[in-house]
Amino acid sequence: MMFEAINFKNKFSKFTEYWSPRVIAQMNDYQFKLVKVEGEFVWHDHPETDEVFIVIEGSLNIEFRDGVVTLNSGEMFVIPKGIEHRPVASSECKIMIVEPKGVVNTGGSVSELTAENEVWV
Amino acid sequence: MMFEAINFKNKFSKFTEYWSPRVIAQMNDYQFKLVKVEGEFVWHDHPETDEVFIVIEGSLNIEFRDGVVTLNSGEMFVIPKGIEHRPVASSECKIMIVEPKGVVNTGGSVSELTAENEVWV
Repeated sequence: MMFEAINFKNKFSKFTEYWSPRVIAQMNDYQFKLVKVEGEFVWHDHPETDEVFIVIEGSLNIEFRDGVVTLNSGEMFVIPKGIEHRPVASSECKIMIVEPKGVVNTGGSVSELTAENEVWV
Repeated sequence: MMFEAINFKNKFSKFTEYWSPRVIAQMNDYQFKLVKVEGEFVWHDHPETDEVFIVIEGSLNIEFRDGVVTLNSGEMFVIPKGIEHRPVASSECKIMIVEPKGVVNTGGSVSELTAENEVWV
């Protein structure tokens, strides 16, 4: 067992790509992923699971078909399974996502924004 | 659906008790719980699940039988299932725990520190 803290700032310093989740920890069959985001993502949903967004730095809008939620640093939101959503950040935002291992970032909406899965940092 | 961010600072302002987890969100069958801690907790383990600690404010030591990890704000750690541990904070520390719904804070080590479960804030 490694007695070493997982430091968000340190982990974020190790990559630059937007919309490209990096796994930093696993708890049972769930993973904690850091993502740098900027601009508009694609509309998508995850039919099989809820998904948690936590904003570490910056500000993020999560758009829904019937509303929007704004998350700032120190705030989180649970996106219910099957609900279409689109994350949008007007400037760079650093977030942590919590979801089951294996969830694809664009859900069923495969596009050039679909990221490789299971990339640890 | 409520389009409202869950704000850690706001949620922490709603209770004062130490070692008394407050649920702020649920994702599938997992819960996110805020806890204010100070002093020494009891040695315990969770035989059935891993457990995540994230420090929001302050500093926390998690002691193990063969080591210790120090977590500061912006750091996290995954305690593997079945591993005995004891959280210790020399001054007030605010943390978030992620674990399956129903996990008892003292595991199998029932004591006066065993908190009521499923208290939302």
